[in-house]
Amino acid sequence: MRDPGAFLDHMRRAPPLVHNITNFVAMNVMANVMLAAGASPAMVHARDEVLDFTRLAQALTVNIGTPDAAWAEAMATAAEAARAAGRPWALDPVGVGATPFRQALCARLLACTPTVVRGNASEIRALAGLDATARGADAADSVEAAEAAARDLAARSGAVVAVSGPVDFVTDGETAFRVRNGHPLMPRVTALGCSLNGVIAAFLVDQPALPATAAAMAYYGLAGERAGAGAAGPGSFQTAFLDALHRITPADLTAGARVEPA
Amino acid sequence: MRDPGAFLDHMRRAPPLVHNITNFVAMNVMANVMLAAGASPAMVHARDEVLDFTRLAQALTVNIGTPDAAWAEAMATAAEAARAAGRPWALDPVGVGATPFRQALCARLLACTPTVVRGNASEIRALAGLDATARGADAADSVEAAEAAARDLAARSGAVVAVSGPVDFVTDGETAFRVRNGHPLMPRVTALGCSLNGVIAAFLVDQPALPATAAAMAYYGLAGERAGAGAAGPGSFQTAFLDALHRITPADLTAGARVEPA
Amino acid sequence: MRDPGAFLDHMRRAPPLVHNITNFVAMNVMANVMLAAGASPAMVHARDEVLDFTRLAQALTVNIGTPDAAWAEAMATAAEAARAAGRPWALDPVGVGATPFRQALCARLLACTPTVVRGNASEIRALAGLDATARGADAADSVEAAEAAARDLAARSGAVVAVSGPVDFVTDGETAFRVRNGHPLMPRVTALGCSLNGVIAAFLVDQPALPATAAAMAYYGLAGERAGAGAAGPGSFQTAFLDALHRITPADLTAGARVEPA
Repeated sequence: MRDPGAFLDHMRRAPPLVHNITNFVAMNVMANVMLAAGASPAMVHARDEVLDFTRLAQALTVNIGTPDAAWAEAMATAAEAARAAGRPWALDPVGVGATPFRQALCARLLACTPTVVRGNASEIRALAGLDATARGADAADSVEAAEAAARDLAARSGAVVAVSGPVDFVTDGETAFRVRNGHPLMPRVTALGCSLNGVIAAFLVDQPALPATAAAMAYYGLAGERAGAGAAGPGSFQTAFLDALHRITPADLTAGARVEPA
Repeated sequence: MRDPGAFLDHMRRAPPLVHNITNFVAMNVMANVMLAAGASPAMVHARDEVLDFTRLAQALTVNIGTPDAAWAEAMATAAEAARAAGRPWALDPVGVGATPFRQALCARLLACTPTVVRGNASEIRALAGLDATARGADAADSVEAAEAAARDLAARSGAVVAVSGPVDFVTDGETAFRVRNGHPLMPRVTALGCSLNGVIAAFLVDQPALPATAAAMAYYGLAGERAGAGAAGPGSFQTAFLDALHRITPADLTAGARVEPA
Repeated sequence: MRDPGAFLDHMRRAPPLVHNITNFVAMNVMANVMLAAGASPAMVHARDEVLDFTRLAQALTVNIGTPDAAWAEAMATAAEAARAAGRPWALDPVGVGATPFRQALCARLLACTPTVVRGNASEIRALAGLDATARGADAADSVEAAEAAARDLAARSGAVVAVSGPVDFVTDGETAFRVRNGHPLMPRVTALGCSLNGVIAAFLVDQPALPATAAAMAYYGLAGERAGAGAAGPGSFQTAFLDALHRITPADLTAGARVEPA
């Protein structure tokens, strides 16, 4: 794969405005994560303006963590507009297996051809039509158990599909990578998975989707490793994680990324 | 009372999925508090799915901090379902005395027989029908001034009623405890009271409500004591508080809990 | 200008209850900022109760960061009530130039005669009817390029107008000040600008608007300076910023404020 640090460098040289329709739990963290990384986030969801805003932004993220009917309309409107404009967009199918409402919403959003779908193993299995052991936002399946589902979903949808876990897996249906960066405290801080999609979207602007996604995941996991080194628990971890996102340079990422063909 | 650490140990051995319908200020903190404690939180409020989700979860919390008409319907739907299924649920009547809308909503929710009602002294007084000195989410009455109201509300509603303050008070209408753990910086961090209800709900699963609530409050206050010992203000306190929730063991809680009969 | 520390002292001697209708990203941070400063925040937006709550509070803030049609109604209702009652209220026109929906909403809110309007340079230029380089919530224009717009907007609206940036500018249309306190990490933490309006509103209670606003901005910037001195990035900065707001005394503010006539 191309030098991972080059993707971080490219993003920071022209910080993209990323439009996010995300859940209430993640909004603040996601904005802080994106600012620390060097991107420019905006959270806009109202049907009265979502289409106007989609036109201003260079990338979009949609996250179904706390959806309702009105937000679902805004998500579909924005995703359709991003697709029509040829702009990258990333879907986070939070808890898709938990309720029929989420399943129907994800089916509608997949029809808007996301550039990247990133979730945990249970979410990717559920999206691919497999039985998954969904328990809210937490994965109950292993990443390995979702690899075939990820390849299948990528091949069918045209999206790059990424599975977060102790070792991440990312594929476009043909080529695949494993990303070994990360830290066990990451799932003990809420919305870190959600917030990763904002970084992925920023990396996608004017870049090929598969390596850009792998580079974003390596960057994120590397920040986790640095934060975890001195953390006394999830509180100090979260603080140090934002600092690490801010301080990691492209050269640091190139040196520290652990991305390998799968 | 039974060994407080046993309740923490029980909760962590089988981390319960807790469904929370809470306010916008608290959502992120509450999720982080519950993850740090060892529980599995999920925030779901849409009428399109709230009933489906209530069926998946082992406990429920309802918090009226930033309500509107649609959320009020979801709260009542979820509370009714939890009651019908015999699952524990905890009510946080934030600012109930402030507006007629909140008073009517709380009356409706009390009819769904919460397992626990926890609030500050002004909120418990207002719920019990007494004049309270409500000022938004901050208590203006002393815990002592709410003890009779708490006993009365518990006896009438069948709920365990807990009053947060410098010394907490918790009662089922007959038996009562005081919990002396805590730190003066706790009310200087927003939504820490709200987030306590998530911990209480996690402790309630398959446990008797009165001692489980007292144990959760002691655990929470002990984390506050540990965090406060090194904090330079409410920012560093919040960080250290999450670390402490994560690090306190059942044995630590047994040693540090200051629960006494009232 | 009058001693800046006197405004902090006045606010803390009788902590005002401030009613905030703000965006989802800012809610938690804004509440924590106001608690750390010594004020009493409440977030209330539902049409079912917003008018009742406006009557309880001593000041109001309105922030259009994540608006929709229902919230817009609540904002206008609360602003009109504050005006009618003679209570101070502060407007934050987040991203006003980005969409026609925001422009129409701000026009409606300006008609409710805010006491203070505070935004970044692009927002103040857009409000004054100038072309602005809006990019979501981030300013793309310099403070200097917004000074004439600020004076004009203040003269036309009757509001004190404040422009946040590396050096802040604040004017009532005749007199003007520059506030040189601040730190470059402040715009790398989301919602710190939004949260400043809560501090301004708390300072406005029973005080003249122009010097109270300048004092609040100096206090905020001084906390940023203290936090930035030891921060390793935006995560540790945010933690230290809340600590600094909590620890700065009126005497500290008087000694550290860098406010000068413009």
